[in-house]
Amino acid sequence: MPARRVAVLAPVAWRTPPRQYGAWETVASNITEGLVARGWDVTLFASRDSVTSACLHAVVDRGYEEDSAIDPKVAEYLHISEVFECAAEFDLIHSHCDFMALTYTRLVKTPVLTTIHGFSSPQIMPAYRKYGDGYFVSISDSDRAPGLNYLATVYNGIDLALYPFRESGGGDLIFLGRIHPDKGAHLAIEVALKSGAPLVIAGIIQDPIYFREQIEPHLDNVRIRYIGPVGVAGKNVLFARARAVLHLNTIPERFGLVLVEANAAGVPVIAMDLGSCREVIRQGETGFLVDGADDAVQALKRIGEIDRAACRRRVRQCFSIETMVEAYERVYATIFDREAGRCS
Amino acid sequence: MPARRVAVLAPVAWRTPPRQYGAWETVASNITEGLVARGWDVTLFASRDSVTSACLHAVVDRGYEEDSAIDPKVAEYLHISEVFECAAEFDLIHSHCDFMALTYTRLVKTPVLTTIHGFSSPQIMPAYRKYGDGYFVSISDSDRAPGLNYLATVYNGIDLALYPFRESGGGDLIFLGRIHPDKGAHLAIEVALKSGAPLVIAGIIQDPIYFREQIEPHLDNVRIRYIGPVGVAGKNVLFARARAVLHLNTIPERFGLVLVEANAAGVPVIAMDLGSCREVIRQGETGFLVDGADDAVQALKRIGEIDRAACRRRVRQCFSIETMVEAYERVYATIFDREAGRCS
Repeated sequence: MPARRVAVLAPVAWRTPPRQYGAWETVASNITEGLVARGWDVTLFASRDSVTSACLHAVVDRGYEEDSAIDPKVAEYLHISEVFECAAEFDLIHSHCDFMALTYTRLVKTPVLTTIHGFSSPQIMPAYRKYGDGYFVSISDSDRAPGLNYLATVYNGIDLALYPFRESGGGDLIFLGRIHPDKGAHLAIEVALKSGAPLVIAGIIQDPIYFREQIEPHLDNVRIRYIGPVGVAGKNVLFARARAVLHLNTIPERFGLVLVEANAAGVPVIAMDLGSCREVIRQGETGFLVDGADDAVQALKRIGEIDRAACRRRVRQCFSIETMVEAYERVYATIFDREAGRCS
Repeated sequence: MPARRVAVLAPVAWRTPPRQYGAWETVASNITEGLVARGWDVTLFASRDSVTSACLHAVVDRGYEEDSAIDPKVAEYLHISEVFECAAEFDLIHSHCDFMALTYTRLVKTPVLTTIHGFSSPQIMPAYRKYGDGYFVSISDSDRAPGLNYLATVYNGIDLALYPFRESGGGDLIFLGRIHPDKGAHLAIEVALKSGAPLVIAGIIQDPIYFREQIEPHLDNVRIRYIGPVGVAGKNVLFARARAVLHLNTIPERFGLVLVEANAAGVPVIAMDLGSCREVIRQGETGFLVDGADDAVQALKRIGEIDRAACRRRVRQCFSIETMVEAYERVYATIFDREAGRCS
């Protein structure tokens, strides 16, 4: 089914792919590169400093999170409307821009597929309800809202080449994620203190008060360290020294890209059994699903039971770019079929 | 030129018309009611609790500034896109929704007129530059950006019936506006202290630090009072006791609705000679244009020279709803002519 023209609409919070943090941009990039590799004619709508083998179409110079001179509201309105003004050039618009892009969809004839990377708050649900008859993909079975026209769940895929497999790890516990109560860095600290294992915390500080009150007091630069946000290279350094990644999220996880990245490198994951974690991590096979810090301490004792090669195998099978893009190709085919049915 | 169908797109920060503060919604309401009075078929897109004699079309229950359960971003995207989804029902969309609405204009055939109520920051200019070939109205000659396709300046008009004329005033100085350095409440205090006249300050506190540091220390509930925001009734109470309204803005004024309201009631205005103030206030006739607090103190001594009836006459002539709507009718006619030319 080549020669179809697809526009991938990435967010413009960060560059695509992001230098460090930016899960939505990462996935938009992986889809774009995967589609190009499989012969699709793809135009990526993203910030002008983005890096892609697709055609890049940009109206915003840099991610608004990376340049305080850019007004996020202006950037989003200009960026999102741009793809819709070009809609006639494409057979499909694949949006990663949340409810904002939905509000343009009824003004163009080109079908729009929205990958919902997460519902940021109940306040955005009126927008999804209004446009619920659009085309949607969820990134996990658990992260679905009722009443939306879902065509499939497509798990996020990563480039396995970026995360080389290591037969053995080290002794560190690793926390990788936004420093925010939702992601549970404080629970990772609790596990580290109770188990006596050293912990390295990496990620952007999204909630400075939480960081100051619940994280910073424990940092001693030896047993518990905070190293700021890290990119791919930094993650690999952490994975090389890792005994396990701790992902003790306190709210339902939507997907959990870092779980897959860790598994790709052969690192087992101890994850809270909330949201999508049980779709990503197989209990006793690629890590452990737990119900709290004490449970995680117990799981840590059994971490040697995890076959590191099995972790990587599962990522290759279920969470690779190729697997993801093949799944999206099936979704696209469904949309093209339905649209053809509409016209006839 | 009746039977043309016009959609007026008001903002949804506040109800239309607003209960108290909300200049953009006030003007959108005045235009709507004025058009209806002159026989136009008008649909007002505004919050659901709005009050209008036009047909009301609403998707947002209340102004997002009046209900913390409403996400401003969601409300704006849903509200603005709604009018464009209904575009085919209208001969003209008259937008008061800034650059956000511009981003939908190229996706519909219906012409869109944007009244620019002010450029909130240099960061929004990229949006105006992109859509500069649209149809624009400025609210004063001074508040124009280069390169935009302006069809006219149309001064804001008020309903004179709301502000009854009073032959004589009282002894108070009045400050009416947002409590923000831009609006110069601190300069009004300086004038009050230097002239010995009592000052009443009314308006929403938009900059709490400014209020705490530069306004609050002077409040003594006798000579200098702050009474919070006021609606039309509250303004009339203030005007009845007013010797003059002090409008010592520190950045160029875009229009200055309160100057006109004060003049309508017969109250002279002492205004900073910045931006549109010299278009609204006639030097020595409806008030005084000054270059600072000391100049304002001098002007206050001459305030008795102002003919209060002349103030009202000028508002009736230049800043009434009727005058404004007639001017907009001429702008609409220009647009209809140009659009007809495009089709042929």
